[in-house]
Amino acid sequence: MPQDEEKVAETIATLKAAEKNEPIARFLGMKLVELTPGYAKITMKLKPEHQNFNGYVFGGIVAAIADQAFAYGSNSLSHPSIAVEFHINLISAPEPNDELTAECRVVRSGRRAGISEMTVTNQTGKLIAKATGVTIPVGE
Amino acid sequence: MPQDEEKVAETIATLKAAEKNEPIARFLGMKLVELTPGYAKITMKLKPEHQNFNGYVFGGIVAAIADQAFAYGSNSLSHPSIAVEFHINLISAPEPNDELTAECRVVRSGRRAGISEMTVTNQTGKLIAKATGVTIPVGE
Amino acid sequence: MPQDEEKVAETIATLKAAEKNEPIARFLGMKLVELTPGYAKITMKLKPEHQNFNGYVFGGIVAAIADQAFAYGSNSLSHPSIAVEFHINLISAPEPNDELTAECRVVRSGRRAGISEMTVTNQTGKLIAKATGVTIPVGE
Amino acid sequence: MPQDEEKVAETIATLKAAEKNEPIARFLGMKLVELTPGYAKITMKLKPEHQNFNGYVFGGIVAAIADQAFAYGSNSLSHPSIAVEFHINLISAPEPNDELTAECRVVRSGRRAGISEMTVTNQTGKLIAKATGVTIPVGE
Repeated sequence: MPQDEEKVAETIATLKAAEKNEPIARFLGMKLVELTPGYAKITMKLKPEHQNFNGYVFGGIVAAIADQAFAYGSNSLSHPSIAVEFHINLISAPEPNDELTAECRVVRSGRRAGISEMTVTNQTGKLIAKATGVTIPVGE
Repeated sequence: MPQDEEKVAETIATLKAAEKNEPIARFLGMKLVELTPGYAKITMKLKPEHQNFNGYVFGGIVAAIADQAFAYGSNSLSHPSIAVEFHINLISAPEPNDELTAECRVVRSGRRAGISEMTVTNQTGKLIAKATGVTIPVGE
Repeated sequence: MPQDEEKVAETIATLKAAEKNEPIARFLGMKLVELTPGYAKITMKLKPEHQNFNGYVFGGIVAAIADQAFAYGSNSLSHPSIAVEFHINLISAPEPNDELTAECRVVRSGRRAGISEMTVTNQTGKLIAKATGVTIPVGE
Repeated sequence: MPQDEEKVAETIATLKAAEKNEPIARFLGMKLVELTPGYAKITMKLKPEHQNFNGYVFGGIVAAIADQAFAYGSNSLSHPSIAVEFHINLISAPEPNDELTAECRVVRSGRRAGISEMTVTNQTGKLIAKATGVTIPVGE
């Protein structure tokens, strides 16, 4: 459910605390570096194990960092929400040791559905991917 | 580029060999269990480190296995190809220790673009997600 | 909201009656030829006015027939529902005087969200496009 | 194919001339009001015949104006190009007599693929929809 200001501040504090021990964040090396109402920023240093059979960075890793920004950004305004749809355009291939940044901005956070936009850039600001996603609130 | 039968058989043998040492496959625990012209099947046992701050399986992990099937399926007919777009509908949340299976079927493999469809199911056959993706051939 | 069997039968009767005078259906020449719980079939004869500056059938027309099947199919199980997201892969260009058929199958119709899949084919059964969409129930 | 400056200016002149007699533009009431390299703006006054069985504006009409901006914007830099994929998030329902504006900005125009972003707003600047699409060049 969309939430009033006080509830949003509380949700953000809860999410920030939870992220410190979040299994997937530790596993993939993703870090929440900013979380404000309707906005989240995640960073991730690419590692050799993120490469695919072609020696490129696996597309699913680029999707994962966008998805992580999406999860925090959308939940900042409406917690708990779950994703029902995710769409990504892969614009430039990252280099194997880039440091990626994903940002999420919530476009709409309604009682029944939320829509978010994400960008992924590298350490020089080069655009790697753009993504969007739809969430639905699942609290009662 | 789309390839004749002999070239496809050779590509499939190359991809199968490359997968044995693929960094991302080892890292995420994904296994290529079938690869035929225009079709790939991947399995993945979920692990505790795949969970997010809510205790659910991270959506990006479901996307990743779909993306891995997509990569092998699309490249089986047209190697090397890269993805420019990926879309996923998350239908049911997997349980934390499900074993997921992703299947990719190439819908079109053209000289200039390819389109693939993916499904993700769990060990009981329950539908977890459906996805699609667009590839472009990048060989000369 | 997802509906019981009797309510679904009533909704389908209502939708079939409404379609007879639906402005957009008349305007674009779309016809509802089948509507059962979770399934809709629409046909549309292409006209010269559907062509774009290249002499091809406008992509938005292919999207429109898929969207019409989506609207009826998703509402058959959960009325009223609105679409929040729509995704289409354009696979083959239709010929300017093809007769198109769009079919929608609901993949999931939940209390909070629905997911549907659509195909568009021509009179010979050739696959023109595949699409998906997300709906949310808007009744109280 | 992506094109040099002179070729782009020529393409834009050709597209502007073609639009004056474009069947679908006349039929749906869409007007090309701006076309510069990598950017297109289309307007469209909604009409009673654009409504669906619920009395709402048909989602396919919102998709159509976004698709028209996409067609002109993407072709301005790479003509002829065709769309292989289109994705739209429907954010607010337009009112039945809104005047819609769609803008397309090309995010990437490569030798093998192009990616564009579209927004649809109404006469008060309210955001109605956001869309993206992938094109492939089809000239030799």
